[in-house]
Amino acid sequence: MSAESKVRDHRLIEGKAVQARILAEVAEEVATASPPVGKLVSVCIGPTPEVAVYVRNQARAAAKVGIPFDQQVWPAEITQEECKKRIQALNDSKDVLGIILQRPVPAHINVRSLQSAIHPLKDVEGMNPASIGNIVYSDIALAPCTAAASVEMLRSTGLDLKGLEVVMIGHSEIVGKPAALMLTAEGATVTVCHHMTRSVAMHSRRADAVVVAVGKAHLIGPDMIKPGAAVIDIGINQITDEDGTVRIVGDVDTDAVKEVAGWITPVPGGVGPVTVAMLMRNSMVAYRRQKDAGWIS
Amino acid sequence: MSAESKVRDHRLIEGKAVQARILAEVAEEVATASPPVGKLVSVCIGPTPEVAVYVRNQARAAAKVGIPFDQQVWPAEITQEECKKRIQALNDSKDVLGIILQRPVPAHINVRSLQSAIHPLKDVEGMNPASIGNIVYSDIALAPCTAAASVEMLRSTGLDLKGLEVVMIGHSEIVGKPAALMLTAEGATVTVCHHMTRSVAMHSRRADAVVVAVGKAHLIGPDMIKPGAAVIDIGINQITDEDGTVRIVGDVDTDAVKEVAGWITPVPGGVGPVTVAMLMRNSMVAYRRQKDAGWIS
Repeated sequence: MSAESKVRDHRLIEGKAVQARILAEVAEEVATASPPVGKLVSVCIGPTPEVAVYVRNQARAAAKVGIPFDQQVWPAEITQEECKKRIQALNDSKDVLGIILQRPVPAHINVRSLQSAIHPLKDVEGMNPASIGNIVYSDIALAPCTAAASVEMLRSTGLDLKGLEVVMIGHSEIVGKPAALMLTAEGATVTVCHHMTRSVAMHSRRADAVVVAVGKAHLIGPDMIKPGAAVIDIGINQITDEDGTVRIVGDVDTDAVKEVAGWITPVPGGVGPVTVAMLMRNSMVAYRRQKDAGWIS
Repeated sequence: MSAESKVRDHRLIEGKAVQARILAEVAEEVATASPPVGKLVSVCIGPTPEVAVYVRNQARAAAKVGIPFDQQVWPAEITQEECKKRIQALNDSKDVLGIILQRPVPAHINVRSLQSAIHPLKDVEGMNPASIGNIVYSDIALAPCTAAASVEMLRSTGLDLKGLEVVMIGHSEIVGKPAALMLTAEGATVTVCHHMTRSVAMHSRRADAVVVAVGKAHLIGPDMIKPGAAVIDIGINQITDEDGTVRIVGDVDTDAVKEVAGWITPVPGGVGPVTVAMLMRNSMVAYRRQKDAGWIS
């Protein structure tokens, strides 16, 4: 099946369209913001070629909505202490709207501790434990972007999330668990499955919606999905075909599952583009909160 | 059925026994702590007769393990600002091991904001959003006491939590959601049901363990439980019998359900006593963390 015919399949939820809608909303808010919004600071520690494409996408989205984007690369041998000091300075700077700490970081850096050092009001990625704790309290203002994107994609199906039976496959800290909490806050009945679950299929087969974030190529086949269900695929896996072609695929066998599912997000082009849009939306939430707190005026 | 025969029923998980075991462990640690542990400060704002019994139980447990317990009552008309200042002073005091903010508080007080003001290292109740966020990161050091108690009760059945199918009924911020996260961290497959769930019975009937925290007397009957399952009842409801007798009952119809269940916690005398024990255990976790952080030496 060619890429062209995929794009036109009504069962596929196109991330680009959802992204465009969100970025347009954000751009309107940025354009009328007074005072003007500060900059997003992206921090890479050491050389991280594997995140170059993410950073570039973030920079592009920021440019589209009109938020200044500052790509910093800190030296690979920087100390934890120095990182904390620099983050503190960014926290204190009125010119800085938000801080994005790109991962991975060098082995000697404690990434969790640095995430905690980012002030919750500047935590546009929603990675500070305090931000995540607020999700438990159903205050989902600054939620982790990928989790927020998966909820947004599910919402875009038009299904009522209240009472929806959702099975989350994967319980990572930055996607599975926060997404489960956010979906629960929206009224869904959520089951979180993971590698210790006796029978994932028993759960996924009864679900109105299945959200997958495991990181295993084509883990989910059509036998695991209830006909008509919505399937949100958060996986991003690189595979090499027999002929040596390298491709990016999700955790779901998209071509096979879309014959069964009511809605499905493609990979690439599904949750990914929306994740970047959620980062921009989070940035404006942070802006409003900083304004409310009297940080900027 | 008389209270005496209940106590001897092997299907009932007695909270007193679990409490005694935990308090003995804590007492041993307190006795050998160097420097000696500081005091727990219980804060009531205004007159709160409804929590008197809880505070008394906390004071008793503290006395048993040897932790000083300071019962403070702040004036009902105190301002939010003044509360924050006092909490800040307690945060800064080397003599204070932990802070317990008793609820309810007067209507003009923002309780969430005060909970956030308690330093995470002194948050022995595990109520600060940062403490709750750490649970998402599977760092369950300072978890909300009732949620931790329900996990402890389930563990006391001897069932392996890894792969256990658990249905949590109720999704409150201080019990349902943190308990679900903690059980997931232990390897259970957890479904969180609530008032918008289409069919709670569909879930509860397939569960190896059902944890209930809803606040509705006798909501869960034997028809909702799989034979042999474990039932953890967190509800505390006051009901008046036809003859005018006032009784405390759980969310589960204990007498009927215990004919079906493999294990069940009574109310009163089940999760309640263990909750107080978890507060004491949390206090010593806080002590160790404060020591590690160089706050006390």
